[in-house]
Amino acid sequence: MTIDNKNLSTVLVGAEKIDMRDMPIPEVGPYDVLVNVKVTGICGSDVHFFKHGRMMDFEVTEPIVLGHESAGVVVATGSQVTRVKTGDRVAIEPGVTCRTCEMCKSGQYNLCPHCKFAATPPTHGTLSNYYSHPEDFCFKLPDNISLEEGALIEPLSVGMYAIERANVKPADVVLVLGAGPVGLLTCAAAKAAGAGQVIVADLIPSRLEFAKTYNSDTQLLLERPQQGEPNIEYARRISAQILKTLGRRADTVLDCTGAETCVQMTVLLTKNGGSAVLVGLGASTQTLPVAEITGRQVDVKGVFRYCNTYPRAISMLQKKHINVKPLITHTYPIESSQEAFLHATNGRDGAIKIQILNTQ
Amino acid sequence: MTIDNKNLSTVLVGAEKIDMRDMPIPEVGPYDVLVNVKVTGICGSDVHFFKHGRMMDFEVTEPIVLGHESAGVVVATGSQVTRVKTGDRVAIEPGVTCRTCEMCKSGQYNLCPHCKFAATPPTHGTLSNYYSHPEDFCFKLPDNISLEEGALIEPLSVGMYAIERANVKPADVVLVLGAGPVGLLTCAAAKAAGAGQVIVADLIPSRLEFAKTYNSDTQLLLERPQQGEPNIEYARRISAQILKTLGRRADTVLDCTGAETCVQMTVLLTKNGGSAVLVGLGASTQTLPVAEITGRQVDVKGVFRYCNTYPRAISMLQKKHINVKPLITHTYPIESSQEAFLHATNGRDGAIKIQILNTQ
Amino acid sequence: MTIDNKNLSTVLVGAEKIDMRDMPIPEVGPYDVLVNVKVTGICGSDVHFFKHGRMMDFEVTEPIVLGHESAGVVVATGSQVTRVKTGDRVAIEPGVTCRTCEMCKSGQYNLCPHCKFAATPPTHGTLSNYYSHPEDFCFKLPDNISLEEGALIEPLSVGMYAIERANVKPADVVLVLGAGPVGLLTCAAAKAAGAGQVIVADLIPSRLEFAKTYNSDTQLLLERPQQGEPNIEYARRISAQILKTLGRRADTVLDCTGAETCVQMTVLLTKNGGSAVLVGLGASTQTLPVAEITGRQVDVKGVFRYCNTYPRAISMLQKKHINVKPLITHTYPIESSQEAFLHATNGRDGAIKIQILNTQ
Amino acid sequence: MTIDNKNLSTVLVGAEKIDMRDMPIPEVGPYDVLVNVKVTGICGSDVHFFKHGRMMDFEVTEPIVLGHESAGVVVATGSQVTRVKTGDRVAIEPGVTCRTCEMCKSGQYNLCPHCKFAATPPTHGTLSNYYSHPEDFCFKLPDNISLEEGALIEPLSVGMYAIERANVKPADVVLVLGAGPVGLLTCAAAKAAGAGQVIVADLIPSRLEFAKTYNSDTQLLLERPQQGEPNIEYARRISAQILKTLGRRADTVLDCTGAETCVQMTVLLTKNGGSAVLVGLGASTQTLPVAEITGRQVDVKGVFRYCNTYPRAISMLQKKHINVKPLITHTYPIESSQEAFLHATNGRDGAIKIQILNTQ
Repeated sequence: MTIDNKNLSTVLVGAEKIDMRDMPIPEVGPYDVLVNVKVTGICGSDVHFFKHGRMMDFEVTEPIVLGHESAGVVVATGSQVTRVKTGDRVAIEPGVTCRTCEMCKSGQYNLCPHCKFAATPPTHGTLSNYYSHPEDFCFKLPDNISLEEGALIEPLSVGMYAIERANVKPADVVLVLGAGPVGLLTCAAAKAAGAGQVIVADLIPSRLEFAKTYNSDTQLLLERPQQGEPNIEYARRISAQILKTLGRRADTVLDCTGAETCVQMTVLLTKNGGSAVLVGLGASTQTLPVAEITGRQVDVKGVFRYCNTYPRAISMLQKKHINVKPLITHTYPIESSQEAFLHATNGRDGAIKIQILNTQ
Repeated sequence: MTIDNKNLSTVLVGAEKIDMRDMPIPEVGPYDVLVNVKVTGICGSDVHFFKHGRMMDFEVTEPIVLGHESAGVVVATGSQVTRVKTGDRVAIEPGVTCRTCEMCKSGQYNLCPHCKFAATPPTHGTLSNYYSHPEDFCFKLPDNISLEEGALIEPLSVGMYAIERANVKPADVVLVLGAGPVGLLTCAAAKAAGAGQVIVADLIPSRLEFAKTYNSDTQLLLERPQQGEPNIEYARRISAQILKTLGRRADTVLDCTGAETCVQMTVLLTKNGGSAVLVGLGASTQTLPVAEITGRQVDVKGVFRYCNTYPRAISMLQKKHINVKPLITHTYPIESSQEAFLHATNGRDGAIKIQILNTQ
Repeated sequence: MTIDNKNLSTVLVGAEKIDMRDMPIPEVGPYDVLVNVKVTGICGSDVHFFKHGRMMDFEVTEPIVLGHESAGVVVATGSQVTRVKTGDRVAIEPGVTCRTCEMCKSGQYNLCPHCKFAATPPTHGTLSNYYSHPEDFCFKLPDNISLEEGALIEPLSVGMYAIERANVKPADVVLVLGAGPVGLLTCAAAKAAGAGQVIVADLIPSRLEFAKTYNSDTQLLLERPQQGEPNIEYARRISAQILKTLGRRADTVLDCTGAETCVQMTVLLTKNGGSAVLVGLGASTQTLPVAEITGRQVDVKGVFRYCNTYPRAISMLQKKHINVKPLITHTYPIESSQEAFLHATNGRDGAIKIQILNTQ
Repeated sequence: MTIDNKNLSTVLVGAEKIDMRDMPIPEVGPYDVLVNVKVTGICGSDVHFFKHGRMMDFEVTEPIVLGHESAGVVVATGSQVTRVKTGDRVAIEPGVTCRTCEMCKSGQYNLCPHCKFAATPPTHGTLSNYYSHPEDFCFKLPDNISLEEGALIEPLSVGMYAIERANVKPADVVLVLGAGPVGLLTCAAAKAAGAGQVIVADLIPSRLEFAKTYNSDTQLLLERPQQGEPNIEYARRISAQILKTLGRRADTVLDCTGAETCVQMTVLLTKNGGSAVLVGLGASTQTLPVAEITGRQVDVKGVFRYCNTYPRAISMLQKKHINVKPLITHTYPIESSQEAFLHATNGRDGAIKIQILNTQ
């Protein structure tokens, strides 16, 4: 395989402004592999970056390559690399940890404070022709998993890790709030873990229509808050309705929206001693029904990315226990990255997961 | 519903000798229900009792009613009963615990030293027309679960609890040794918990033939030990072969045989830091490859009956996540109990689970 | 021992109004023991009841006997009682659970929805000459534990259970917010679990003075919020100061105040992947720094009473691993219950734990 | 600090034969530090190597530097080192893991199959004037911990990790079999974790005499097996005696001997649902009372070295929660290594821990 000296990349240069640039081909250290990136999905956080030029504490001050949901083909390997070889098709786990801190050594590497995560400033993302990455964060794909599916392992990992944090056991009743890509993949992960009933709730009927075909048993259309209704009152009112519909609280509830009302419902609808899991990112300060935490011991747990999920996700796709293909609704060539991001921003035409393809 | 004064019961009076007797109708306390037992499966431990008149520390010194895998119809309820009512079809969880000891209060009621378990002397079993049992150990069956399936919840519980003890996670590679009823139900529980690959091994080809159709991905026919080959050498030799076949150790191995060689293989074939789970009952003293426990931290865990499994098992059957019906290969009327037990003892005609039906 | 027909009891008849009444001697069921209650501590929740005539969802609509932190002497036993006998000195665990629900059977009996808890309407409290209680919730005291100490096992249980929920491991850095009785006992439980450093914070200097002598290594005097300063800003400001003082976040932080600012600090000051434990009861809805939950995976866990703590607490007192005696600052005879409750309400004279003694 | 070109090392060249050699000064990689080793303890495994020239699967085929319980002073640091600096006094954690395998990434790095462990062929040990080691396995010692104590962190780690694996909770009754250095340090770790009663058993009265002064509440002198008595019968007989003496089984039992009879007693004397922990290394195949595993759910867990213990151990020593100094009974200059190893082999003069000091 030859490596040409072109490295076309999707570079965010300001709010809603992408430039296609030929970036330098990155160095390949002794434990790194050079990946010819073929498929990259657009994530909500990419959209957020694209729209606002910032996310949480991270601000785009320099032009930055976008993208972190990628798969591609290995085109070069460092001198010490043993796990993958040139020609292997790999999924890229985009966060590179320090491997030596307390978090890394105790098996919680997603909490490593030194982690460098693709497309999180100042680390460039994966939307490049060539991307250099440590071999232990590149996972070889079996023949029956396409690169498109491989690029979906990243968001699937979020769902799987959420279900692991929720400690879902066979026959559990699982409620997922939000039927976007992460919500849907959380449903899929719940099913794969043996959940007895997966209920998904959303405000948007078309999303529930899709959910009806994808790893959920029950779909709940949420009405919107009434004019002037405080969030907590809305959450209590809707929770009471859902409780009546379901006949019981869920063993676990996972919020995949970040909205305060949903976070509140997550806590209200979790059974005594169960886990309310926050997957979605929302306002940094929110009002919670704390008496449910203290009086019913509902544990509130967050999900920050994922940890040790890639090998399991690959197994699930390989064994057809989870099918991620239905989520891919639109694709764009990398040269049309700006158009792809605008589509992801407006979400039109039933867009669920939009992927950018690189045919170089 | 009327309760007649007949209580036909399958009474073991000596080794291989069953008497059909009209036992007194048991008392129904304020928290008890009287169940008209309709279906009862025969378990390996029943067979052991039947053949030898004893099991482990328990000896049959007085005539004892057999049976503990039962389902039936509630015909009377004590004054304080609120969960079930006359006419309900219920599965019977056969061990009644003290509810007040350290084990009961800490959620490990299967280890309660005061437990009274059906057909474990001096407690009579369930193979009676009428059986009195506390309501909290009677579980209402939904309409789409038959009493025959309900009677299989007991052995299914063993498999589910084993998988819980093994801490099986989605995509795990699970190896089950022994393809008898408990082994097969352990496979089913592993699948229901999201196992990525379920491998089952046995000495008997016909069992593996059946297993091919029931919740296993890979079937391994084990050769028998060579003349004079010590158990541990056989276990190491066969384990090396299996390791070669599978390409890796299993995330968890569960022994459903009790045989020393299998217990040894269970430990040898479990991955570093994984759980080797002993489900089968065998010799009380066995030789183990202890260096695998100390050098690779393979945890050896036993399974004694089950704990808190009935509601989950009912959900799994109701949702069709597990199908137990294929296991029922033969049925006998209660009047032919002796014949049924002889059949269970010789295991002819591809017998997997033999059930005794009461049509009174 | 003779049981006279007098049953002097401390009865709350309205806000801040106690009547000493001769209540009927309660019935003793087959599994119950009749306790001649000798010592009863006053808890914050008793004070809340006393002041407001209500607490959370529970309202005092009928006169109710107060008290739930008690120890006494067994004067009669039901026919089936085997664990304690007349003359035994016992500590009373005041919540009687149903023993048969999902929560009870899974070892989380403190979450039993059918629990009857002393002095929680409509269940009468323990501030009576005679109190009837199931034997499995009465724990025999060894000779070297006084009844006064025995009555402190109830609040000690809260601290111990909180430390268990926090999963404190040897050498952990533990921060406790609030130096009242529960905060102090939480410190003691942290020390007993091997905490490497116990830091306690409070607004009141005299409380920290006491804490200096009781199971804490570091005492932090918290300044009060500035005029008009929003809670979350205060919490962030003080947390930054504490972080600077300690040089790191704590492995776990436990709030023993219920105040919103403290709950916020609890989350802010817990390390990545650690547990923020809410022990104190406060407003039912509170604003939390949710981004710490999602971005740093700080688990927020509540503590509702306790579960399986009495035997361990007794062992700790017996072995002198924890000393609760310094907390008893004042005692009153039962006849002066009104005075005792008023004292507990105003907290004067360095009151930490006030106990009511019955010499009948 | 100057690094001279001498690197005096304790080299095992054959069974019971040590040569003092000037080995090459090791290379210091970018993440490594060069340690001037000052103190090294002799461990049972060193003695085993010394006597037999082999241990388990590892054979001494080439001359090898001994030692793995070491502390020293940093004399040089690689270009990327940030955590320690020249002049720092450090304890050396002697196993260097790959940091990238499943075991490493899931927080069980002690099970890493690629681990290079000091003095385990072909990796040289620490008994050298200079030793090069990655910074993340070098832990800075506070001023109040001596290098002698620092060298004891390695065996202390074994005890701490054993207690963690045993899941010891405050007030637990802990039984330790074997009162050698690891047994004693296991007792110390149990105490530090809040154990209510620590019982230690041994065959040798002088060891128990020492144990009486060191972190144990009860000492049990074990009689030796009778002529011809099978191991399991001896184990059952002695276990019955101990059970009678203690009045109950222990919450956890830890074997620190490796002897089959003790491993059997470990299982026999653990309570229902408790953990029997194997710390000592013995015969690779042993006979176990398996019915205790299956019938009482005694989990058998091994301890292979330790994981994430050094920071906690340092905190414990710093806070004086554990005192390791009494264990150091003898010291030798490095030039007398042969004499030191002979002493460690014969164990005379009440030797518990023998350390080798390097004054260069």
